[in-house]
Amino acid sequence: MKTRGCCASICQCFFEYSTPKILVIRSFKVGTLNRITQALVIAYVIGYVCVLNKGYQDMDAVLSSVTTKVKGIALTNTSDLGLRIWDVADYVIPPQEENSFFVLTNLLITLNQTQSHCPEVRHFFKLILYLTSDHLPSGVQTGKCVKYSAVDKTCEVLAWCPLELDKEPPNPPMLADAENFTVLIKNSIRYPKFNFNKRNILPYVNKTYLEQCVFNRITDPDCPIFRLKDMVTEANEDFQTMAVHGGVMGVQIRWECDLDMPSSWCVPRYTFRRLDNKDPVNNVAPGYNFRFAKYYKNGNNEETRTLIKGFGIRFDVMVFGQAGKFNIVPTLLNVGAGLALLGLVNIVLLSHAVCVVVMATVYIC
Amino acid sequence: MKTRGCCASICQCFFEYSTPKILVIRSFKVGTLNRITQALVIAYVIGYVCVLNKGYQDMDAVLSSVTTKVKGIALTNTSDLGLRIWDVADYVIPPQEENSFFVLTNLLITLNQTQSHCPEVRHFFKLILYLTSDHLPSGVQTGKCVKYSAVDKTCEVLAWCPLELDKEPPNPPMLADAENFTVLIKNSIRYPKFNFNKRNILPYVNKTYLEQCVFNRITDPDCPIFRLKDMVTEANEDFQTMAVHGGVMGVQIRWECDLDMPSSWCVPRYTFRRLDNKDPVNNVAPGYNFRFAKYYKNGNNEETRTLIKGFGIRFDVMVFGQAGKFNIVPTLLNVGAGLALLGLVNIVLLSHAVCVVVMATVYIC
Amino acid sequence: MKTRGCCASICQCFFEYSTPKILVIRSFKVGTLNRITQALVIAYVIGYVCVLNKGYQDMDAVLSSVTTKVKGIALTNTSDLGLRIWDVADYVIPPQEENSFFVLTNLLITLNQTQSHCPEVRHFFKLILYLTSDHLPSGVQTGKCVKYSAVDKTCEVLAWCPLELDKEPPNPPMLADAENFTVLIKNSIRYPKFNFNKRNILPYVNKTYLEQCVFNRITDPDCPIFRLKDMVTEANEDFQTMAVHGGVMGVQIRWECDLDMPSSWCVPRYTFRRLDNKDPVNNVAPGYNFRFAKYYKNGNNEETRTLIKGFGIRFDVMVFGQAGKFNIVPTLLNVGAGLALLGLVNIVLLSHAVCVVVMATVYIC
Repeated sequence: MKTRGCCASICQCFFEYSTPKILVIRSFKVGTLNRITQALVIAYVIGYVCVLNKGYQDMDAVLSSVTTKVKGIALTNTSDLGLRIWDVADYVIPPQEENSFFVLTNLLITLNQTQSHCPEVRHFFKLILYLTSDHLPSGVQTGKCVKYSAVDKTCEVLAWCPLELDKEPPNPPMLADAENFTVLIKNSIRYPKFNFNKRNILPYVNKTYLEQCVFNRITDPDCPIFRLKDMVTEANEDFQTMAVHGGVMGVQIRWECDLDMPSSWCVPRYTFRRLDNKDPVNNVAPGYNFRFAKYYKNGNNEETRTLIKGFGIRFDVMVFGQAGKFNIVPTLLNVGAGLALLGLVNIVLLSHAVCVVVMATVYIC
Repeated sequence: MKTRGCCASICQCFFEYSTPKILVIRSFKVGTLNRITQALVIAYVIGYVCVLNKGYQDMDAVLSSVTTKVKGIALTNTSDLGLRIWDVADYVIPPQEENSFFVLTNLLITLNQTQSHCPEVRHFFKLILYLTSDHLPSGVQTGKCVKYSAVDKTCEVLAWCPLELDKEPPNPPMLADAENFTVLIKNSIRYPKFNFNKRNILPYVNKTYLEQCVFNRITDPDCPIFRLKDMVTEANEDFQTMAVHGGVMGVQIRWECDLDMPSSWCVPRYTFRRLDNKDPVNNVAPGYNFRFAKYYKNGNNEETRTLIKGFGIRFDVMVFGQAGKFNIVPTLLNVGAGLALLGLVNIVLLSHAVCVVVMATVYIC
Repeated sequence: MKTRGCCASICQCFFEYSTPKILVIRSFKVGTLNRITQALVIAYVIGYVCVLNKGYQDMDAVLSSVTTKVKGIALTNTSDLGLRIWDVADYVIPPQEENSFFVLTNLLITLNQTQSHCPEVRHFFKLILYLTSDHLPSGVQTGKCVKYSAVDKTCEVLAWCPLELDKEPPNPPMLADAENFTVLIKNSIRYPKFNFNKRNILPYVNKTYLEQCVFNRITDPDCPIFRLKDMVTEANEDFQTMAVHGGVMGVQIRWECDLDMPSSWCVPRYTFRRLDNKDPVNNVAPGYNFRFAKYYKNGNNEETRTLIKGFGIRFDVMVFGQAGKFNIVPTLLNVGAGLALLGLVNIVLLSHAVCVVVMATVYIC
């Protein structure tokens, strides 16, 4: 009989529901405070967490692939090279990169270098260079001293001779025409969590349009073909000034997508920013340049090279953004935290009561 | 005496524990509803948050380093170049990149270009080209008109002459043999938050195996050597078709690691996807190609170049994934939110009660 | 009159505040347990979530742009090339990359290759090579057999002849001087959510300092110019050993920024790690190398090339980190969850009570 009673009591226990005995306070003041606090918390949960911050959505970061194609030709006229045409194979170095492309805008050229001996650049001159630019010894000293000019002697070095004269780049820049080059940026993105793919050539854009459009924030915001000068201008920079010493530009493509909405609302937003520092203070080796060489063999099977110190603008295509889609986990997480905050209401009111009690106690003491 | 009483009352207060007076309702209906709601919430917290979404884990994103090495040779036979062998130094351009490699599969070659004057490509022909391809002026007009063919005259330009004839790339592709090239992808990853390193050559894989294996999803899923054709086929594309105009392939390596489990369970998963758009509609400049040149000097120290419009497949190695490891903060965050949801039970039941009260009130009114 | 009563009752309802009737237990044991549990939860919420994990902050991931500039010259003396100077245009390949740079430290050179016929490398020898290195057929067999040496005949191949002899790279490495090369790494970062920009050349660093400083963790921790050997040494590797077969180094720049603090506290931290596997076990094709070629034309307008198997160190600059700034949403989320945990106190104590009840029931049964 005892066992039966025990089972019965466990059953009974299972079907029990316990709720606190509630004390209802009918007070204009406390009631209003209560409702206002509740309203604030509910407004926060619904308005801020749900509507503004989309707390009910699961998020995913973007995966992206970028290809670029630059077009345009430039004409230069110098004493070294004469009249010369530069096309895309000449000024894009290296010819392809993953998320970036470099356009040569200015250059210092040293023709017909061979491995041989030659007098080092004059010391005094070199000292100045050392303090003002990115000069470093360019060869190994042989120990001899030779004539550098009619009046000067310098140390002889084994190096690629003649040595490069590290001077300021031409101003205006040699490839000033580069401002009219255009670049087609093809970007396809993917949100792997939601199996969502899209590309920056939008479905309604047709081939005819693509063949003659140029990006313009107002008239052609969806054209993926950009004029180099326009990009630099949007970043509040002057193309010709930047072209002299080179620089780095960020082409930012932002894909903020709410996948609870129609997928056609998920479109790229382009912004342009200069990434390197143009501030003349604290700026060692300003701009962007690098040295590269073209190697030849002359009639005697001797290697010669043309050394080029190339200044130019590197455009880094940075794709970022996130997509959100309704998901029960973050929703419940946020609603749960919101409900817990509703509990704050009691604490606010109780702390009011506690205050009264404490002050009463103190008064009595 | 008052002070003493005050201290005593504060002490008393500290050791107080206040709990609501509980009203126990013994009702089959309310009790069952109560238990079912509780069971649902607990099932959600344990099943979904903990087991499926691993809400008790702290997460970290992957840091990755990739090196690639392509192998294989191709033979071409054209009127321009004769019989010619292509090896890795010829078809991988540039020779090394960070997370990507490009394999040349097709090309249009323009030999012996020099900076000189030549007649522009015929206008009518050019118009067609302008509308159907990515053609742009390739030189600067001198203002003269010269014979282009027996019957035609066109404007003379200063350019790299002879001009490239922008025609369709050969079909079948010139380096059709590229489908049998293999690539060794070495990928080492790191989860900095957990100080965890791993690489895609798994510990049990030995050197002998690595020297002869080729990735196969069923028989060799851990071999890091991939045949180019297999990768393209896995993405549901035809290699020879893709090779004609080129394209971009994504080699996705996913590292989803539960670091509460043995580290040998943390293995890479390979998937392959075509990243560029092959849809013939809305597709300006389809495929993937770029122009590059090899520069030579002839006997007169005059610069000549071979211009190559190279079509090929760029493989972007994309490493992603995240690792999770038990951490008290997200655990408590999720448990806290879960507990708050348990509070929902009361609200559900109370709202039931409120309904009754409201309806009663309305009825009375 | 009924309607009036109804309205009144709704009004009354609005100004109602219901609170549970509280039962105050004055017990030293239960009170102490209650306060200790509360103290633990509050300590967790304040100490761990707020102070250590900064649960009150909204987070953003870093966007970064990197440029690098290597300096230094090396001298080599080999029978093939004679005395030769290597400068930055010779040993950095390709001349510019986005987040990475490669420095050549060792090489195997095959001079004067032309497209022609030559005897294949001896079979037996080749078999050994096949098993021990990354050798693969280098040409297409013509079907003839020709003399390979005085005693041996091998198959004739159409290839770039003479064939490369795939042997071990020189040890010590040819460009041993590379250890003294320096690299200037310019890194500018951005936290887009907080519109915060910074670069690794800190404001107080002036031009004079930058022209002669070299990074040293103790004396010059903010100098962005790194000696290659120092970077490798910091990763507990030996430069000369690594230079023989090449390798991949990670230059990690961590930007952990608390944007509630002065922005001058947000500084980069540099760490260096070897990324490839140097473990001789399970290591196919150890180190890092790739083949590239320089193309020439000889007097007969015939193409020749110099094939270089270049070994070297690739430095991947990896920028990571996150910034936090006070934001109300994560704060409330964490506080909410913390409050819910305070609810645990009751459960702990109640479960204590339940225990007593259950045991009593069992005892009675």
